[in-house]
Amino acid sequence: MTQSILNNTSLFSFPIRVYYEDTDAGGVVYHANYLNFFERARTEWLRDLGYEQDQLRLIEKLLFAVRKVEIDYLKPAFFNDQLIVTVQITKVGASTLDVSQQMVAVNKKEEQLLSVAKVLLVCIDADKFRPKKIPKHINTAIKNSPYCTNTLKRS
Amino acid sequence: MTQSILNNTSLFSFPIRVYYEDTDAGGVVYHANYLNFFERARTEWLRDLGYEQDQLRLIEKLLFAVRKVEIDYLKPAFFNDQLIVTVQITKVGASTLDVSQQMVAVNKKEEQLLSVAKVLLVCIDADKFRPKKIPKHINTAIKNSPYCTNTLKRS
Amino acid sequence: MTQSILNNTSLFSFPIRVYYEDTDAGGVVYHANYLNFFERARTEWLRDLGYEQDQLRLIEKLLFAVRKVEIDYLKPAFFNDQLIVTVQITKVGASTLDVSQQMVAVNKKEEQLLSVAKVLLVCIDADKFRPKKIPKHINTAIKNSPYCTNTLKRS
Amino acid sequence: MTQSILNNTSLFSFPIRVYYEDTDAGGVVYHANYLNFFERARTEWLRDLGYEQDQLRLIEKLLFAVRKVEIDYLKPAFFNDQLIVTVQITKVGASTLDVSQQMVAVNKKEEQLLSVAKVLLVCIDADKFRPKKIPKHINTAIKNSPYCTNTLKRS
Repeated sequence: MTQSILNNTSLFSFPIRVYYEDTDAGGVVYHANYLNFFERARTEWLRDLGYEQDQLRLIEKLLFAVRKVEIDYLKPAFFNDQLIVTVQITKVGASTLDVSQQMVAVNKKEEQLLSVAKVLLVCIDADKFRPKKIPKHINTAIKNSPYCTNTLKRS
Repeated sequence: MTQSILNNTSLFSFPIRVYYEDTDAGGVVYHANYLNFFERARTEWLRDLGYEQDQLRLIEKLLFAVRKVEIDYLKPAFFNDQLIVTVQITKVGASTLDVSQQMVAVNKKEEQLLSVAKVLLVCIDADKFRPKKIPKHINTAIKNSPYCTNTLKRS
Repeated sequence: MTQSILNNTSLFSFPIRVYYEDTDAGGVVYHANYLNFFERARTEWLRDLGYEQDQLRLIEKLLFAVRKVEIDYLKPAFFNDQLIVTVQITKVGASTLDVSQQMVAVNKKEEQLLSVAKVLLVCIDADKFRPKKIPKHINTAIKNSPYCTNTLKRS
Repeated sequence: MTQSILNNTSLFSFPIRVYYEDTDAGGVVYHANYLNFFERARTEWLRDLGYEQDQLRLIEKLLFAVRKVEIDYLKPAFFNDQLIVTVQITKVGASTLDVSQQMVAVNKKEEQLLSVAKVLLVCIDADKFRPKKIPKHINTAIKNSPYCTNTLKRS
């Protein structure tokens, strides 16, 4: 019996619908667009945590830039598919975040795992494009969230 | 006998190849991406005139923003098609440019007209997003070019 | 006193969030991507009417292709903006639909109209890419919907 | 002394210009769009080898689908940058290709390495989306090319 990805409360999940713009002449979602979907989910995870990225940029002068992606394409996503994209933080560094993500199709009763990705984010200065320490309050909020496996040690 | 678009020396023309990223599950170039192709051609027309847009933004603090587009989709463009996109300036205003553009497929011996567009550009201040007069030297360069039908009056 | 677009029950409306993927280095939503947003809203309007486009293609062998677009860019949309995109059918032809659309930003209490578009759709055969009569049941459903100003004549 | 990537004759290279459509509000090329650039280069590598992908699909009923990508973002690419994207085949399997790719900015005299990627392609049946053996003539052409390090053994 496989465990449901969608019932896993340690994964933040966000629904995404596939439109024509996302597909290519192969009849499936164009491979680069999977990265768009993964980023939308990370944006919504940050919003859920209380952080709006336009405010982070304006007030904290920071951006989370993508430094590395490892992505596996397991099954194609098709036009009109209803997808769920998940976010889980597996490591919080001084200026980096390791993110584990999944893309699942939920058209019928069964879940179908379409893609998994490991994304390394770097907190950078929005003007200088140089790494910058993740502010304490953000670091704490991430570690305290239910979607982080690298939790704060509590004595 | 139809006149060749490509032999018309009053049209600036730029070649564009259709890749998978440009297509959709309908098997053709996704309709919004035609606007990308038209913009690439306008960028290359400006470059041909001697203006790099990153420099225009940095030094002249200006952007050419799209204010209005009227586009006709006559025939579909397909994956791997070799296209030619044209640019012709039909009117130079104080802060606006009227641009007439065409997209032609040139896969075989014959030209096939796929799309025509009328684009209204506004010269804007890059920071304030407000209309700004087109600098004299740019206005003159545009009117003097072979690709402008709204030429300088010469006595 | 301006009438609210969003309280107008004769307009189908669909919420869209602006992500990084939608923006460009000018700091605003890239002009071609407005067409993506307008299409997402048309897709959801059809779904609301009871029609899934993948099924329409498979069963009715039809696509609604974009034949013509007239779009006005009134104000820029920014990263993280919450938008509402509307759909209203103004004319139902034998094989065409005239669609009137608006894009509104709803970040704060006030609505801001960012863009308006007139889109001409043609019902085409999915394989031959030739115009095809809109099936009777779809034509009727569209005309009977609250989002169509070209309603069925009733005696 | 660093060896020039561009003078390396074992790398297929293809020039790509950065347009507004490729950038995001961070002021740089949007991370997902790097995958577009890498794919354009692979398409041109196949064309250089004598294979047009629309013909491969029609005649050989095959597609090269992306199965896995590992991508490192080393430095940002900016609007108007002139890039060179390289392709090198490091392994030819029965139905897979291991591809090593680089993205280099060549705006000034110096080359700047912006990104490297390892891409795993799978030859699939264009209709069934199932792995399929790479046809003998294509396998041989790839191995015989100067851009493959997994060359044919010659006795």
